[in-house]
Amino acid sequence: MRAGPSQEEIRRQNLGALLRYVHVHGATSRTELTTALGLNRSTIGALTADLAAAGLVTEGAPRETGRAGRPSLVVRPESERVYAYALSIEVDRLRAGRVGLGGKLLDQREMRRPHAVSIAETAPLLAAVVKEMQESVPDGSVYVGGGVAVCGMVRREDGMVRLSPNSGWLDEPLGEVLRGQLGGDRPLAVGNVADLSALAEHTRGVAVGCDNLIYVYGDVGIGAGIIAGGRPVTGHGGYGGEVGHMVVHPNGRPCGCGSRGCWETEIGEHALLRAAGRERLLGPDAVLAVVDAAGRGDASAQTAVRQVGEWLGFGVANLVNIFNPEMVIFGGTLRHVYLASAAQLRSRLNAMALAACREHVRLRTPKLGNDAALLGAAELAFEQLLSDPLDAAP
Amino acid sequence: MRAGPSQEEIRRQNLGALLRYVHVHGATSRTELTTALGLNRSTIGALTADLAAAGLVTEGAPRETGRAGRPSLVVRPESERVYAYALSIEVDRLRAGRVGLGGKLLDQREMRRPHAVSIAETAPLLAAVVKEMQESVPDGSVYVGGGVAVCGMVRREDGMVRLSPNSGWLDEPLGEVLRGQLGGDRPLAVGNVADLSALAEHTRGVAVGCDNLIYVYGDVGIGAGIIAGGRPVTGHGGYGGEVGHMVVHPNGRPCGCGSRGCWETEIGEHALLRAAGRERLLGPDAVLAVVDAAGRGDASAQTAVRQVGEWLGFGVANLVNIFNPEMVIFGGTLRHVYLASAAQLRSRLNAMALAACREHVRLRTPKLGNDAALLGAAELAFEQLLSDPLDAAP
Repeated sequence: MRAGPSQEEIRRQNLGALLRYVHVHGATSRTELTTALGLNRSTIGALTADLAAAGLVTEGAPRETGRAGRPSLVVRPESERVYAYALSIEVDRLRAGRVGLGGKLLDQREMRRPHAVSIAETAPLLAAVVKEMQESVPDGSVYVGGGVAVCGMVRREDGMVRLSPNSGWLDEPLGEVLRGQLGGDRPLAVGNVADLSALAEHTRGVAVGCDNLIYVYGDVGIGAGIIAGGRPVTGHGGYGGEVGHMVVHPNGRPCGCGSRGCWETEIGEHALLRAAGRERLLGPDAVLAVVDAAGRGDASAQTAVRQVGEWLGFGVANLVNIFNPEMVIFGGTLRHVYLASAAQLRSRLNAMALAACREHVRLRTPKLGNDAALLGAAELAFEQLLSDPLDAAP
Repeated sequence: MRAGPSQEEIRRQNLGALLRYVHVHGATSRTELTTALGLNRSTIGALTADLAAAGLVTEGAPRETGRAGRPSLVVRPESERVYAYALSIEVDRLRAGRVGLGGKLLDQREMRRPHAVSIAETAPLLAAVVKEMQESVPDGSVYVGGGVAVCGMVRREDGMVRLSPNSGWLDEPLGEVLRGQLGGDRPLAVGNVADLSALAEHTRGVAVGCDNLIYVYGDVGIGAGIIAGGRPVTGHGGYGGEVGHMVVHPNGRPCGCGSRGCWETEIGEHALLRAAGRERLLGPDAVLAVVDAAGRGDASAQTAVRQVGEWLGFGVANLVNIFNPEMVIFGGTLRHVYLASAAQLRSRLNAMALAACREHVRLRTPKLGNDAALLGAAELAFEQLLSDPLDAAP
C-alpha cells in the first residue's frame, strides 16, 4: 500500500542496491552494475563516488582481461576495512568471527562450551574473544555492528532467548546482556542458528538463486530456517521454523518441550545414539562414529541410521507438502545422517509427498559448512548498512 | 537487489498504491490519502485526476460530516463500473460472481455440481452462467479480468490443475479451457480455494492487519492458505499449503493421495461421518447434522466431534510450531467442527505447541463466509490492474 518514494529515498535505495550487489557478488564492473541494477552509467558513477567517499567501496582497474578496449572500472566492497562481529552459541561450542563487508571471514575463533552454561557465564567468554580479535584490527577499520546466532527461540525485536532447551535457557535477555558486555553504540542483533544458516546459504551458499528453501539444522535439537518467495518465514514473534516440535509419532517418546513424539525425539542426536545402543554418548563425534560404523557394516549402527533416516524422510515429506520448496538442506550433525541415508530418505519422500510438491525439490548439504551460522549472523549485522548505507555508516 | 525506480515507474507505483488503497478501504478523503500514502496534496490531486480520467475512481463531496470548514474531497472506487468475474469450483457446487472494484459483489449465482464432473463438462456450465450475468451488465462497464478458485493443486503460471482428488482431476488445463470458453482478451487467473479464501480474509475479512495467518479450509479434502510476513506462501510451483497431506498418524488409514495417516484422513468429512456411524452420507448438510446431533446430546455424534476435534488440534499445533501465526481461521465445513470443539482444540494446542509460538494466536471463523472464495478470486483478477492501473485498464 505504500506510495512511491521521494527523490532522496530513491537515491538511498539505489545506494543500498549497489552496495548490496557488491556485498553479495564481490568485485563488479561498472558495466555489469549498469545492467544488473537497470541504471545508466552516470548514475552508477555518482552512486559509486558516494559510497567510496563513505569508505564502503573502492574503485579501480580490473585484473587483466585479455580483451581489447578500455576496461570498465571495477567496484569492490571494502572487505578489509568495514566489518561486523559474528558470534555463534552452539550446543557444545562457541564461535566468534570478524566478517568483512562482502562476507569475508577476516578472523575466527572457536572454543568448547561447557555443558549448559548460563548466559551470565557465556557473555563474558564471548566478550573476551571479541576483545582479543579487536587487538588485531587494523587502524582505520570501521565496525558496523554485531550478529549472534543461537540454538533457541529468539524474540526478534530485542534478542530475548525465549527458550533454548538444550542450554537450559528460558526467557534470557541475551541481546541485552551481550550489548552491555560488548559496549559501543553499534547495533547487535540476535537470531536463531537455523534461520541464519538458511540466510547465509541463500545469500552465498548452496541455495543462491533458490527462493523457496528449508534448511533443517540438527544436533540435539532440530530447527529449520525457512525462506519462502525469497523472504525468511519468521512468524509473528520471530519463532517460526520450530519443525523439531512437529509431532510425527502420536504415541512416541516424551520430548523436552512437554509434548510427545516430536520430530526431534526421532531424529535428534539422542534418537540416533539410543537406537545404536550408545545412549551414554553425545555430540558430533559420537554421531559421526555411528555413521562411520554403519558404513563399515556394524549391524546396530546400520539399523540406527536406517531408522533415523526413515523418520527424517517422514518429516521432510510433511514439510515438502506444506512448503513446496525447491531445496532442502541438512545442516549440523544431521548432515552426516542425511548423507548416510539419502537414498532411503528420497524413497520415503517419493512415497509420502505429493508429486507436484516434490517434483523439483533438491536435497543438499550446506556449502558453507560450519561457517554458515557466522556468515548468517554477519548478514544480520550488515542488514542496516545495506538498507541505508549513508545513514548506517558510522 | 533491484535499483530504485525511475520517475515514470514512481508515478505508476503511486497510481497503484492509491487505487489499491481505495479498493481495500473504500471511499477515502484526499486528506486521509495524503497521510496514508505519505504524499503531498498536489500529488494526490494529480494521481486522482489520472485515475478518474481512466474511469477507475470518482471524486466527489463527502457525506455530511457535521464538522465546520471546507470538507476534503472523497475518492471512491468505480465499483459499479469496473468489475471482474469470479468463479469458484467447489466439491458440491459451482459459484459465480461479478465483483466490482472495491470488492463489491454486484451479482452472484450458485448451482449444485454433479459429483466429480469433468472439466470439459464444468467449463461450459460456468461460461453459461457468466453469459447470463453479462446480460445485466450496465452499458459503459469495464471488464478487467477473471479469477477462479478451485479445490485442488494449481500451477500458478497457467492455471493447470495438477491434482484435485475429490473431482478426480489430474493435470487438467482448467485455465486454458476456461479462457477458451469465456473468450475475450482479458486475463484469467486460477488459484487454490484455500489460498484465495486466505487472501480475501486478509484483505477485507477477519484477518485484516494480521500478517501471519493460516486459513485451514476443509470439506472432503483439507488445504491451507498461508500468509507469512504479509505475503502468500505459494511455494516453488504454487502448490504450498497442502497441510491435509501432513501425516499425523503413521499407522493411520490410507489416503487418496497414496500415503497413509494424512491429516485429511482424520479431520476430513469422511472421518467425521465415519466416526459418527454415518459413512454413507456426505456433504455440508451431513456434517452439520452430526454437529447438531452432538449439540443435542447424541452420544456417537459427540464422540465423533470430540475425536475429530482432537486431531484438528493436533495438526493446528504442528502448524503453529512451524509458522508462529497470529491467527488460524477455519473455513468450509471445518468451520462447524471447529465451533463444536473449540475448547478442546485450544487445550490440545496448549499441550502440544511451544508457548512462544502459540502465545498470540487467535482461532477464528471466516468473516466472509461462503463469499471468501469468490472475493479472493476477484482479488486475483484485480491484481494486474492494481499493480499498474493505466497499463492494465482496458
